[in-house]
Amino acid sequence: MSTGNLYIALLHYPVYNKRGEIVTTAVTNMDIHDISRAARTYGVKRFYIVTPIEKQKQFVERILSHWQKGYGATYNPSRKEAFGIVRVADTLDDVIATVSEETEGRVHVVATSAASRGTSLSCDDVRGKISQSGDAFLILFGTGWGIAEDVLEKADFSVEPIRGNSDYNHLSVRSAAAVLLDRLCRH
Amino acid sequence: MSTGNLYIALLHYPVYNKRGEIVTTAVTNMDIHDISRAARTYGVKRFYIVTPIEKQKQFVERILSHWQKGYGATYNPSRKEAFGIVRVADTLDDVIATVSEETEGRVHVVATSAASRGTSLSCDDVRGKISQSGDAFLILFGTGWGIAEDVLEKADFSVEPIRGNSDYNHLSVRSAAAVLLDRLCRH
Repeated sequence: MSTGNLYIALLHYPVYNKRGEIVTTAVTNMDIHDISRAARTYGVKRFYIVTPIEKQKQFVERILSHWQKGYGATYNPSRKEAFGIVRVADTLDDVIATVSEETEGRVHVVATSAASRGTSLSCDDVRGKISQSGDAFLILFGTGWGIAEDVLEKADFSVEPIRGNSDYNHLSVRSAAAVLLDRLCRH
Repeated sequence: MSTGNLYIALLHYPVYNKRGEIVTTAVTNMDIHDISRAARTYGVKRFYIVTPIEKQKQFVERILSHWQKGYGATYNPSRKEAFGIVRVADTLDDVIATVSEETEGRVHVVATSAASRGTSLSCDDVRGKISQSGDAFLILFGTGWGIAEDVLEKADFSVEPIRGNSDYNHLSVRSAAAVLLDRLCRH
């Protein structure tokens, strides 16, 4: 299947902390590496790292630069290739505006959550939508204790939480992103 | 489906480095966290971290202890639960012996590799074997530049590499383990 119009974003704001307060989380190096490699594997067009904090944006740019232009680029060319689809953005609205402009069409914003929501679609349903539509789809992943309710409500729809075959439902965002992309995009 | 007899092992020896030499890699904190959470999610019975180096085994035990008995256990009980299935082992042979003893039956050793092998089975075939057999299955994941040929040859069979929908084939071992478990074990 084609996933030429699939975009993903990792939100560091607005997300919850353990106490249910809205916070900005720190960007982690491993998220950038693992999720960019998974995104590149599944033909995602762009992976946006969303944080409003200037120092954090500089941190991401420094990592990207190391692997794209520095020693890392020759040491590990496949990392350079994965990082080629990574972009930094201030806000989710900025990401939506950029993708809209690039695709000149509608952008369907898809929320993910570890908790079930009444309006969630199954992975198969979302897979069908992506493969049958020429529109762009932007899948949101959260950090911390999950994406703020406000953002979840404004999304066009949600996809069901990743469940395995147990009552345990605590994948890392890196694992959840890889599994979801596999369910939505594998041949 | 039941995966009550599924075991996984992460090998830090014998694996290749970038130059194709057999080395022992360092254990990384994130592998323990991400893979134990994925394993627990998919009903894996035990996750073995295999390293012959005493200092590395102590490093793993210290991390496990923090999240199982220390501050981490109360701060994040779901991490404690995931770490409950993690064990440290000196060698792959030790793991096989332990699992054999525990299950009192045959242990099928399943290799994984990012490179295609002539003898690889599809994920669906392996899923069928696991769900239909009462035997134990032990899936091996490599670190560094992959599991040594010697071990791959001694495995009962290999499972096909994880491919997305692109020519890019460089998932992290954390992502590859999560995706493979989803393909083999999801409801």
